[in-house]
Amino acid sequence: METALTPLEFGRRARRLYADREAVVDRDLRLTYGQFFERCDRWSAALQKLGVSAGDRIAYIAPNVHAQLESFYSVLQIGAVLVPLNYRLTADDFAYLIRHSGSRIVCAHPDYVDAVDRVRSQLPKVEHLVSLGEIRQGWLDYESTLKSSPPEFAHPVIHETDLATINYTSGTTSRPKGVMITHRNAYMNVVGTLIHFPMTPADRYLWTLPMFHANGWTFVWTVTAAGGTHVCLGKVEAKTAFEKINSERITVMCAAPTVLIFLANAPERVRKGVRAGVRVLTAGAPPAAATIERIESEFGWILTHIYGLTETSPFISVCEPRPEHQAFSAPERCVIKARQGVELITSGELRVAGLACHVRRK
Amino acid sequence: METALTPLEFGRRARRLYADREAVVDRDLRLTYGQFFERCDRWSAALQKLGVSAGDRIAYIAPNVHAQLESFYSVLQIGAVLVPLNYRLTADDFAYLIRHSGSRIVCAHPDYVDAVDRVRSQLPKVEHLVSLGEIRQGWLDYESTLKSSPPEFAHPVIHETDLATINYTSGTTSRPKGVMITHRNAYMNVVGTLIHFPMTPADRYLWTLPMFHANGWTFVWTVTAAGGTHVCLGKVEAKTAFEKINSERITVMCAAPTVLIFLANAPERVRKGVRAGVRVLTAGAPPAAATIERIESEFGWILTHIYGLTETSPFISVCEPRPEHQAFSAPERCVIKARQGVELITSGELRVAGLACHVRRK
Repeated sequence: METALTPLEFGRRARRLYADREAVVDRDLRLTYGQFFERCDRWSAALQKLGVSAGDRIAYIAPNVHAQLESFYSVLQIGAVLVPLNYRLTADDFAYLIRHSGSRIVCAHPDYVDAVDRVRSQLPKVEHLVSLGEIRQGWLDYESTLKSSPPEFAHPVIHETDLATINYTSGTTSRPKGVMITHRNAYMNVVGTLIHFPMTPADRYLWTLPMFHANGWTFVWTVTAAGGTHVCLGKVEAKTAFEKINSERITVMCAAPTVLIFLANAPERVRKGVRAGVRVLTAGAPPAAATIERIESEFGWILTHIYGLTETSPFISVCEPRPEHQAFSAPERCVIKARQGVELITSGELRVAGLACHVRRK
Repeated sequence: METALTPLEFGRRARRLYADREAVVDRDLRLTYGQFFERCDRWSAALQKLGVSAGDRIAYIAPNVHAQLESFYSVLQIGAVLVPLNYRLTADDFAYLIRHSGSRIVCAHPDYVDAVDRVRSQLPKVEHLVSLGEIRQGWLDYESTLKSSPPEFAHPVIHETDLATINYTSGTTSRPKGVMITHRNAYMNVVGTLIHFPMTPADRYLWTLPMFHANGWTFVWTVTAAGGTHVCLGKVEAKTAFEKINSERITVMCAAPTVLIFLANAPERVRKGVRAGVRVLTAGAPPAAATIERIESEFGWILTHIYGLTETSPFISVCEPRPEHQAFSAPERCVIKARQGVELITSGELRVAGLACHVRRK
C-alpha cells in the first residue's frame, strides 16, 4: 500500500515528533507544534462548519503572519484548495483573482479588509469574509471563530494528484495565470529542497520571503518537515531583519536578490554585529557575484543559489557546490555561486531552449 | 505531466551532470559516469538481444564488483527485474531462489559459477548463464558480450509502480521470502536517505555493505544521485578496509554493527592513522553505545544510526540529532545514538506494536 505524497505528511510527522518544540514565533506569540496544529484543526473544523468541502477554493490576502502559515495545513487537510494572493496587488486585482479562482471564502489581514470591501459587490460567489486580526463589520473574526470550534474535523481521503494550491503569477502577459500545484508537486519540492539545502530541528527560519510567493518557495512545509522554527517578520526592512536574526538566533532564511542587496547595503550601524553562519537560500533573478561576496565575507553567511518558477512548484535548478570549487578564491567562488546551476536531484529532466524552459514535473 | 519516480532518474541526471567525474573504482579499474553508463547501455542491449523483455527476472550472484553495480541500471532500464542473491548461500539455496523468482538468466561472479553448475539440472527455465569475470565452459562471458554490443537499446516505458528488484530475506521462518521493490519504493528511499544523510559530489563511498542486501540499503543509487564515487572493496576485512579508506580518501560508508565492531576492535597497527571525518551510516541490530563511542572518539568518525527492513525498501527510522544533544557529554550522546530513533521525513506513518511493525510504504 502506498502513502500519498502530500505536504500534510510533514505536518503529521511534526505533530508527532516535535509537539513540544517551538513551531512559530509571530511578534509576542509563540506556539509549539502541538499548539500550532491544534489551531489548524480548529480552523479546519470551522471551515467545514461554514460549508467548505473538498475541492472548494479559499483565498487568503495576508503578509507573513501565523494565520497565513496555518492556512497551508488547515485548508489542505480538509481537501480544499488554498489560493494565497499577492497582498501587494490592487483591490481590482483581488476581485479578479478571487472570481477567477472561484473562491467561496476570502480571509484577509486587517490591512487588506478595506480593499476587499471596496470590491465586495463584484464578488457574488463569495459566501464568507474572514478578518485575520481585527473585528470588522460584515467579517467573521478568525481568532474567536477558531477558538470556539472543536479541534475535530472530518478527514477526507486526499490523493497525491489532488490540487493543493493555486498560485497566481506571470502577470507580465495580461492577467495573472493560476498555477495549479498538487499535493505531490509540493511534497516533491520539499524533499528536493531538503536534499540540496539540509535542515534539522536546530534550524530557526526567518520569514522574509512572502508565503504567498510559490508557497514561500515551499518553506511553509519545508521548515515543518525538518522540525525547525518559523519566525515571522512584519515589514521586511533591514533594521528589523537584523534585530530579529540576532534576537531569535536565526540560522536559515530565503531571500530574493533584491532583499540580499538591501541587506548588503544597510548602513554599518544597522548591520554591525549580525550573527554569522546564517545559511541563505536565494532564487529568482541571479544575484550579482559582488552581492554574494559581500554577504558571505562581511556577514559570514553561506549562500545557496537556486532557480525556479511558480510553474515548477518552484525549484528546478541549484548551483551545486563541487569539490574543485574549494581550490578557488572567495571572489572566484562567488562568481560561480551567481550561476543558476544544474537540475536538482528531484527536478526531473530540464532542457533550456532559448527563452523557453521545458520541465517534466514530478 | 508527471515524471515517474524511478532510481533510473538518478542515473539520467548523473550521466548528464557528472559524465567526467569518477563513478566507480574496482581494484585497478576506474570508470567515469560517462564510461559506467555506456557499459550499462551495452549490457542492456546485450540482454535484449538474449531475448529479455520488460518484466523478465534476472538473477545475480556476486560480491561488490562493478558488474553487480551495473546491473542496478542495465537490468532496470529495460524494464526487467533484478534479483540480487545473497552470495553466501548454498548451491541448493541458489537453485531454490532462481526457480522461485522465475529468473531466465543467471549472472554469477566466477567464485559462484561452480555452485550454479552443480544445480544446473534443477534450473530448466534458465536460458542463459553469464560469467561476470572469467571465461567458463557453458557460460557467456560478460565482458566480451558487453563490449561487442552497441550502446543503444530499446527503451520501454517504465511506470513508477513497476517492479524493480526482488530481494530475498526473512529466511528465519522456513524459505526466504521475496520482497518486491518498485521503482517508486527505491526512489523514495534514496531521497529520504539523502535528506537525513546528506551527500555531495565530493563524497567517496566505500562498499563494505553487500549490494544484494536491500540493494545496498539503496546506496547503489544514492551515491549516484549525489554524484559521489563508488569504491568497491573485495573481501571485507579490517586491514584492506582501512587501507582503502586512506588510499581512496573515503568520506562515507555504510556498515552493519558487526562491521563496526570488527573495525573498532582491529589491532592498533592496522587502524593507526586512519583518516578522520568519515561519516558512517549504520543500521540493522542496534550497535552498542560503547562501539559507537570508540568509532567516534578513536577514529574521529561521525555515526548516523538508521533502522530498516528489506520489506520497507529499507529505511524507516533514524536517530535524528536534536539541538539539545549538544549539551550532553560524548558518552551520553553515544547512548542516544544507539537508539533506532524516529520515522524518516519520507517514511510514512510508523507504528511499533510489540514485535510487529506496521508501515505504510510510499
